[in-house]
Amino acid sequence: MKNQVDINCDMGESYGDFKVGNDIKIMPHITSANIACGFHAGDPLTIARTVALAKKHRVAVGAHPAYPDIMGFGRRTMQLTYEEAKNYIIYQVGALQGFAKAFGVSLQHVKPHGAMYNDALKNRELSSAITEAILALDTGLIVFAPPKSALANTARDAGLRVAYEFFADRAYNPDGSLVSRKAAGAIIEEPEKVVERTVKAVKEGVVEAVDGSLVELGIVHTVCIHGDIPTASKLAKTLKRSLEKASIEVKPVSQFI
Amino acid sequence: MKNQVDINCDMGESYGDFKVGNDIKIMPHITSANIACGFHAGDPLTIARTVALAKKHRVAVGAHPAYPDIMGFGRRTMQLTYEEAKNYIIYQVGALQGFAKAFGVSLQHVKPHGAMYNDALKNRELSSAITEAILALDTGLIVFAPPKSALANTARDAGLRVAYEFFADRAYNPDGSLVSRKAAGAIIEEPEKVVERTVKAVKEGVVEAVDGSLVELGIVHTVCIHGDIPTASKLAKTLKRSLEKASIEVKPVSQFI
Amino acid sequence: MKNQVDINCDMGESYGDFKVGNDIKIMPHITSANIACGFHAGDPLTIARTVALAKKHRVAVGAHPAYPDIMGFGRRTMQLTYEEAKNYIIYQVGALQGFAKAFGVSLQHVKPHGAMYNDALKNRELSSAITEAILALDTGLIVFAPPKSALANTARDAGLRVAYEFFADRAYNPDGSLVSRKAAGAIIEEPEKVVERTVKAVKEGVVEAVDGSLVELGIVHTVCIHGDIPTASKLAKTLKRSLEKASIEVKPVSQFI
Amino acid sequence: MKNQVDINCDMGESYGDFKVGNDIKIMPHITSANIACGFHAGDPLTIARTVALAKKHRVAVGAHPAYPDIMGFGRRTMQLTYEEAKNYIIYQVGALQGFAKAFGVSLQHVKPHGAMYNDALKNRELSSAITEAILALDTGLIVFAPPKSALANTARDAGLRVAYEFFADRAYNPDGSLVSRKAAGAIIEEPEKVVERTVKAVKEGVVEAVDGSLVELGIVHTVCIHGDIPTASKLAKTLKRSLEKASIEVKPVSQFI
Repeated sequence: MKNQVDINCDMGESYGDFKVGNDIKIMPHITSANIACGFHAGDPLTIARTVALAKKHRVAVGAHPAYPDIMGFGRRTMQLTYEEAKNYIIYQVGALQGFAKAFGVSLQHVKPHGAMYNDALKNRELSSAITEAILALDTGLIVFAPPKSALANTARDAGLRVAYEFFADRAYNPDGSLVSRKAAGAIIEEPEKVVERTVKAVKEGVVEAVDGSLVELGIVHTVCIHGDIPTASKLAKTLKRSLEKASIEVKPVSQFI
Repeated sequence: MKNQVDINCDMGESYGDFKVGNDIKIMPHITSANIACGFHAGDPLTIARTVALAKKHRVAVGAHPAYPDIMGFGRRTMQLTYEEAKNYIIYQVGALQGFAKAFGVSLQHVKPHGAMYNDALKNRELSSAITEAILALDTGLIVFAPPKSALANTARDAGLRVAYEFFADRAYNPDGSLVSRKAAGAIIEEPEKVVERTVKAVKEGVVEAVDGSLVELGIVHTVCIHGDIPTASKLAKTLKRSLEKASIEVKPVSQFI
Repeated sequence: MKNQVDINCDMGESYGDFKVGNDIKIMPHITSANIACGFHAGDPLTIARTVALAKKHRVAVGAHPAYPDIMGFGRRTMQLTYEEAKNYIIYQVGALQGFAKAFGVSLQHVKPHGAMYNDALKNRELSSAITEAILALDTGLIVFAPPKSALANTARDAGLRVAYEFFADRAYNPDGSLVSRKAAGAIIEEPEKVVERTVKAVKEGVVEAVDGSLVELGIVHTVCIHGDIPTASKLAKTLKRSLEKASIEVKPVSQFI
Repeated sequence: MKNQVDINCDMGESYGDFKVGNDIKIMPHITSANIACGFHAGDPLTIARTVALAKKHRVAVGAHPAYPDIMGFGRRTMQLTYEEAKNYIIYQVGALQGFAKAFGVSLQHVKPHGAMYNDALKNRELSSAITEAILALDTGLIVFAPPKSALANTARDAGLRVAYEFFADRAYNPDGSLVSRKAAGAIIEEPEKVVERTVKAVKEGVVEAVDGSLVELGIVHTVCIHGDIPTASKLAKTLKRSLEKASIEVKPVSQFI
């Protein structure tokens, strides 16, 4: 099973005339697109174009719901009630399902965005709200989450499939958590190092932490890359090729999970 | 066929802590609920509660999409491109389909809100955008529109079912259009008169215009009442009873169209 | 100095067609209006009408800035950076100064709203951001805050005048903090009790806590009443009269602080 | 008087993490900055940074208010009432005045954005609403508008100073209006041609229309350049130098109007 993996990237994060990322260049080199749903980015026109682009490249589409915060790009924690969180997810994922329907594709996965993702790693109530919302919409949806996170555990316990994520360009703490973005060295910038770590993570299920120790990742289903850096499309292309050279098939996670 | 009719009302037009209308009192007396989709009103929590309330009273649920204008309650014309309009509808109706799915009901209809509704009566491009969006999502959805309007014609020509609306509490011009809200006498306030006109419209397909002439309405599938007046729930109750007394069966339009 | 006090109430919390509160009935009975600035409520038209209404009744106007969260009415904590918080305050208070200028009145005070207010009671960084924003705009502005709160301390240390608030209809803990709204008995509903507590708080600087102990409030400059309850206008009227009967002059805090 | 001119450019049109334009490179080469006020772009943090940047380069700051439409970047006509328009301007310009105050600079001018600007060229009611709002805030504010436009006439008749604008990179119709952006040749892309036309417009008060005829512009107070094209900063630099070489002093319009 360790000879196949998915590459996911946040897509469709423009908002009206506010253009973000380089979806056209990155899309050919990924296999799953996390599409912004309008709460942190992604107006309906952008969603439509992004789903169309993903379809063209046979990239699986997923919903990338967020806290309702355009001004903060969904990167600021908001204290929501359980009912608010649950229904914000139903709304956003439902909207994406509409576009998937309109373009004749099916929604593959859900990956919360930004602060909601980070909060869901530890917050069981938020994770339950997200899980319940997904269950109410489509029990076939796959949840993207790091292994051992509250979100992964909650979703799996509820019977949802969970794709364990590896963050290709992020430094890891010895406990398997990510080094805070605010810390020096949080982002791994050398493309070779990113590729090398990713191949190792997928093949062997381990990654070297900042202190040199080895972190057990377990199985890696999907590799997350970031589209908001200038080198994103080049990295995506190199990463995909390198994985394939290492005899790892790169394809949407729904095909092998 | 003239012995049955639907009663529709805008529902779920609260927004977070901003409370609008009296859904709980009105819902038992209508048969179709036009549920705000978040662009002019209707945050996700409100949508969820409104769909649940509709389900409880066996009221059919519909989407009530609007221009993106919370501050103006969707009552101000915005000049959208065809692609913007189409995708704003897909987004909003898709979100409502999500909630319908979550509550185990099916979406019956789409009725645009406020300025979008008014603009679609004459604007063929907007009507086409709305129609295309609906076709992309579910060809079984019914469009609510006045007879002879651009929206009705466009939707029907595209193969969608159209429910012709009668506005119970609005004065009519001799040409079948509504008297502008800004004009004196635009709103008919006496409940008895509202009821009397409605029964006549449903049974005979005519309504008396402001100049005393008779307007041919053709068949009336659904009667629109307004929920944002203090007497709304009482009027709804009276109207439903009066129609039933007149041997008109009151039920969701999908059951007889 | 203990024979005079200000009565403040949140005003202008409608948003476009979403109507909140009963400003017209309450305004005659208060002396300071905390006017929503557009981030949780208060579109520009509402602000204009509210400033005009306050001016008519010689009520002092203040800015009531909030987290940017219309959907949550500013009642949800958002994690802002120092710079975000500071500039959100400059923006909102600046906008209110514009309306004050347009109506020929001067802005008297600033009282943060909802979650921002609650967070600022303990959060020194947020309090500093608020204080710095106010200093940058007008060093004559008065800050409304409970005594001993982070906000009160920070503002006073920076040289701003602080009006200490007493919450007329809220139960107090023995340490002087408010009983959480979620707890039973958090809101004192009997008007007589509200009035009695307030007169005592203003005259003697003490209030009885939920355990029966006496909380030292120190001087009370302004009494906060809530406008979002059905009995608000009646309570405001009774409260003002009762204070005056007790020989306490009720007037805007800028006249005696 | 024809040996001096102002160069203005829209600035601060980012919104939170959505980055627009290249303010840092353009600011050194302009003399008036039209700063977005939050309704189409320009969150408070962006406004603060933009005012600081303008101050650093001794660029005069102006408010660039818009219709409330982040999703459409203020480029879509919205039908506002007189009162809505007037108070939307007071709100936005008031907020900008707050930032000007905070940074110790004074607001020089107001230039409506996008669809509001275009609508105000012909719409007298909208122009009056804008004018009244400005008068209510600061009678010393200068209005930027094309000569003979409804906005220019209304503002001037009300006693406000009006700076007549020339659009450096836009083709003109024989009647002095701009060629629609949708038409071929609407944008003049060759920098040399832009510079040449501008020098001629400033020195001689004329510009060649698309049909080869000469349009009388009258006096040109300020030249508008666009910051949202890749070559913007280079063009700004060249334009400023070329004007200076032609013995035209380039400085904020408030210094010579």
